[in-house]
Amino acid sequence: MDKKTFKKYGYQFVDWVAEYLDRVGEYPVCPDMKPGDIKQILPANAPAQGESLDDIFKDFKTKIFPGMTHWQHPCWFAYFPANNSPPSILAELLTAGMGAQCMIWETSPAAEELEVVVMDWLRKMLGLPEGMKGVIQDTASTSSLVALLSAREKATEFNSNIKGIQEPLVVYCSDEAHSSVEKGAKIAGFGTDFIRKIPTDPDYAMIPEKLEQRINEDLKKELKPCCVIATVGTTSSSAMDPLDQIGDICRNYGVWFHVDAAYAGTAAVLPEKRWMLKGIESADSFVFNPHKWMLTNFDCSAYFVKDPGSLIRTFEIHPEYLKTGVDREVKNFRDWGIALGRRFRALKLWFVLRYYGVEGIQGMVRKHISLAQFVKSEIDADPHFELMAPVPLSLVCFRLNDGRSDKELDQLNRKLLEYLNQTGQLHLTHTTLKGKYVIRLCVGTWTTDEKDVKKSWQLIQKKAQEILT
Amino acid sequence: MDKKTFKKYGYQFVDWVAEYLDRVGEYPVCPDMKPGDIKQILPANAPAQGESLDDIFKDFKTKIFPGMTHWQHPCWFAYFPANNSPPSILAELLTAGMGAQCMIWETSPAAEELEVVVMDWLRKMLGLPEGMKGVIQDTASTSSLVALLSAREKATEFNSNIKGIQEPLVVYCSDEAHSSVEKGAKIAGFGTDFIRKIPTDPDYAMIPEKLEQRINEDLKKELKPCCVIATVGTTSSSAMDPLDQIGDICRNYGVWFHVDAAYAGTAAVLPEKRWMLKGIESADSFVFNPHKWMLTNFDCSAYFVKDPGSLIRTFEIHPEYLKTGVDREVKNFRDWGIALGRRFRALKLWFVLRYYGVEGIQGMVRKHISLAQFVKSEIDADPHFELMAPVPLSLVCFRLNDGRSDKELDQLNRKLLEYLNQTGQLHLTHTTLKGKYVIRLCVGTWTTDEKDVKKSWQLIQKKAQEILT
Repeated sequence: MDKKTFKKYGYQFVDWVAEYLDRVGEYPVCPDMKPGDIKQILPANAPAQGESLDDIFKDFKTKIFPGMTHWQHPCWFAYFPANNSPPSILAELLTAGMGAQCMIWETSPAAEELEVVVMDWLRKMLGLPEGMKGVIQDTASTSSLVALLSAREKATEFNSNIKGIQEPLVVYCSDEAHSSVEKGAKIAGFGTDFIRKIPTDPDYAMIPEKLEQRINEDLKKELKPCCVIATVGTTSSSAMDPLDQIGDICRNYGVWFHVDAAYAGTAAVLPEKRWMLKGIESADSFVFNPHKWMLTNFDCSAYFVKDPGSLIRTFEIHPEYLKTGVDREVKNFRDWGIALGRRFRALKLWFVLRYYGVEGIQGMVRKHISLAQFVKSEIDADPHFELMAPVPLSLVCFRLNDGRSDKELDQLNRKLLEYLNQTGQLHLTHTTLKGKYVIRLCVGTWTTDEKDVKKSWQLIQKKAQEILT
Repeated sequence: MDKKTFKKYGYQFVDWVAEYLDRVGEYPVCPDMKPGDIKQILPANAPAQGESLDDIFKDFKTKIFPGMTHWQHPCWFAYFPANNSPPSILAELLTAGMGAQCMIWETSPAAEELEVVVMDWLRKMLGLPEGMKGVIQDTASTSSLVALLSAREKATEFNSNIKGIQEPLVVYCSDEAHSSVEKGAKIAGFGTDFIRKIPTDPDYAMIPEKLEQRINEDLKKELKPCCVIATVGTTSSSAMDPLDQIGDICRNYGVWFHVDAAYAGTAAVLPEKRWMLKGIESADSFVFNPHKWMLTNFDCSAYFVKDPGSLIRTFEIHPEYLKTGVDREVKNFRDWGIALGRRFRALKLWFVLRYYGVEGIQGMVRKHISLAQFVKSEIDADPHFELMAPVPLSLVCFRLNDGRSDKELDQLNRKLLEYLNQTGQLHLTHTTLKGKYVIRLCVGTWTTDEKDVKKSWQLIQKKAQEILT
C-alpha cells in the first residue's frame, strides 16, 4: 500500500473513530445477538487473493461492528470501566505505526526510558513510596501473578525456580478478592488448597485479626505463609482492605505483601481519597490499571515493586541471542514479567498524562465519584431500593427490596437487571454479596455526564415500578 | 476533545505514519544513544495542567522518536522480524477507537466470533489438523507457558491446580530451544532441575533417540515425564526438530506434545515448506506468531490446542460477577489463557488476511526465503565466510573465517558485528552455536527488497575486508 493510499484510508478510519466516539451514546449499549449470529455470516476460509480495503472496511461496518458491545457508551455502568480517550487512541496509532518490539533497552531505548519516566510520574501522582519502581504489564491478573511468583521465589530463597515447589506455600486474601488471585495461585503452582480466604467485615473488608489467626494456624501446621494479597476496591463492592493493619502483620511474619488496586488505584490521585492507601509503605508490590479509569486504552496495567532485584531474579533469562553491551546499565523489561515481547505502551500513557494533566484526571475522577454519590443518595431516599454496600468511590451496589424473602428478591433483581439491559439504553452487571444477588452500577466512563446518570436512574426506577406492579 | 479536533490530529498522525513507513529506510536502523540520554531530557513529574496535543506531538518527534530503533527498516535483519503492515495498523486504530474489552462473549460477541473464525482460517492456511482450536495469546512465551500448564494439569489429573505440585514433573526440549521454555518451567513451578535439554544433531535439531533415552532414565528414577516441547525454527539457527519421531515418542509415553513454531510457522503457508510440520497431528498444542512474519503488528500469537477442554479446565474461573446467561454456548476466551482482560486482536488479523490474501502472504514469504538463499549462496561462494547452519527458511547464520582459532574468530566476528551495526545502515544480531560466536541475518521485514539485501551483503563484505586488512 503506497503512502497516498494509506493516507486516504487513514483519514477514513480516523473519521469513523471520531464519529463513533461522538455518537457512541446513540447505539444500544449491547448488541441484540445470539451466539453464532456473526460466525454464520463469515466465510470459512481466508481469501486466496487479496481484497480491497473498501470491501474489508464495508464488511467491518456491516458485519462486525453491529456485534460489538460499546464500552465507551455514556451509560456503560457494567463491570469496571475500560476507558480509552482521544490522545490514547492517537498514541496507539503511532505505536502500531512504528511497530517496535520493546523487549530490551537496545531494541528501543526511548521506549524503555519513557516507561521508567511515566511510571515514576504515576508513582508520585498516587503517593506511592519513593523507592518503588514501576513496569507496565498487560493486566492486573498478570500483575498479581507476577507478585505471587516473586513472593514464591523470595520465600524459598529463589529455589522454587530451580528445584520446583517442594513444600506447601500459603496465599492469603479476603473472601472478596478478585478471581485472578485464585487463577494466579493455580498457575504459580501453589494450589487452591493453600489459598486462605479471610473473612470480611460487614463492609466486605478483610478482618486483619482473622488474617493473623489464620497465619498462626498455618504455622502450627508447619505450612509456610508466603503472600498476602489485599484489595483496595474489590470487584464486587469496591471494599477497602485496611492496608496499615495488614501490612503490620505481613512485616511481623515476613510475608510478601501485594496490594491489588486495579480499579480503585486511580482515585489515589485525589488527596481526599489517599486514605485508601494508608499503610502502603509496607507493600512489596502494588498494581492499578490505567486502562480502567485513567483514560489509557487497554492494555496498560501499572505494577510497582519495592525491590526490583527480587522481581528480576524471579524472571531473568540470559540467552546468548538477547545479550547486548549495555545489559548492566539499563532496565531490560523482559525480565520484569512473563512475556518476552513488549509493545510500546508507555507512549499512550505519556500522551494521556500530558494531555489531561494531573488536574484533568482528578477532575474526571471527582465527577464520577460525585455522580455515584448522587445515585447512592437517590437509593437512600427511595424506599423500594436498598443499598447493599458502602460507596467509597464510584461503584454503587443495590437491590430492589419490597420485603420479600432473600431468595425471592434474588429472582426479582435478576429480572430487573435483564429488563434494564434489554432496553439497550444502559448496561449494568451483577454480583453476589454474602449470598445475596446485587446489582452493580459503576460510574467511570469518560463519556458519562450528569444527564446520563440521571436518565439512567430514572429508567431504573421506572423498570422497578413496572416489575413490582 | 471534540470530533473536529480529533479528526485534525488524526489526519496529522496518519500523515506521520505514512511518511515514516515510506521513508523508514532512510533512518539509521538503531539510534546513537547512551543509557539515560532520553530520561535526562524528560521532566520528573507529570504536568499539573493539561498540555496541547501540538506540544506533545512535537516532543514525540523531537525527544522520543530519535531514540527509537526501526524494526520496519528494510535492512532490519536482527532477531526475528516483527512486522506491522498498513492494514494491520489501520485495524489497530479501530480496535483502540472502540476500546472494547473482549474477555467474554457477552462483552463483545463480534470479537469472540471473529477470533474463532480467523483462527480457523489460520489453521487451514498452515495445514494444522482439523480438530485443533485456536486462540490469540500475546506472545509465544505466554503460549508455551499455557502449554506447560495444560500439560502439568493433565499429567496430574487436574490436581496440581488444587493441591499444588506434589511430585517432580519433567519437561523436555532441545538444547537449542527458546529461553521461554526455561522461563515457563520456572513460572509453572516445575523448576529448572526438571528440564532436560536433549542434545541436537549437527543441524541443531533434537535427536529423538536421546529424548527417548532420557525419558526412560527419568522413569527409572520414578520421575514423571510431563511435556515435550519441540521447536520448528529455533531462534539461534531455525533448526527443525523432527516432529514425527518426537510425536511418536510422546504418544508412546503419554506425554503432552507442544510445538513452538513462533517464527517458522508462517512458512507453512507454502506447500513446499509443509514438510516442517510432518507429524503435527501428534501435537497437543502448537504456537506461531503472526506478529513476527505475517504482517500483523505486535501482539498476536496464535495458539492452537487439540483438546480445548483440558486448556479450559486448567484456567477456568467462575466468579459471580463474570457469569452470563450464555456461558454454556460460547467460548469465553478469558478461560483460554492467563490474562482476564483481552483486546480485540482478531480484527487486525482479519484485515491482514483479507487484504493480502493467502497468495499475498505466500508471495512475501517466498521472496524472503529466496533472498536469504541468495545470501547463503554468496557465503558459499566467498572463501572469507563460513556458513554455520543450514538455511531451511530465511535465517542465515555465518561467520567470517580466515583460519584463526575459534576463540580468535569469536573476537573477530564480534568486532565485525559491531562495525556493521555502527554504520546504522543495517541491523544484525548474534548467537552462539556449539560454543562458536555466529552472526545471524534474518530476512523477513515486509519492507525488505532485493536491493536492500544485495546492498547489505556488499556492506558486510566491505567491512569484512576492512577488518581483515
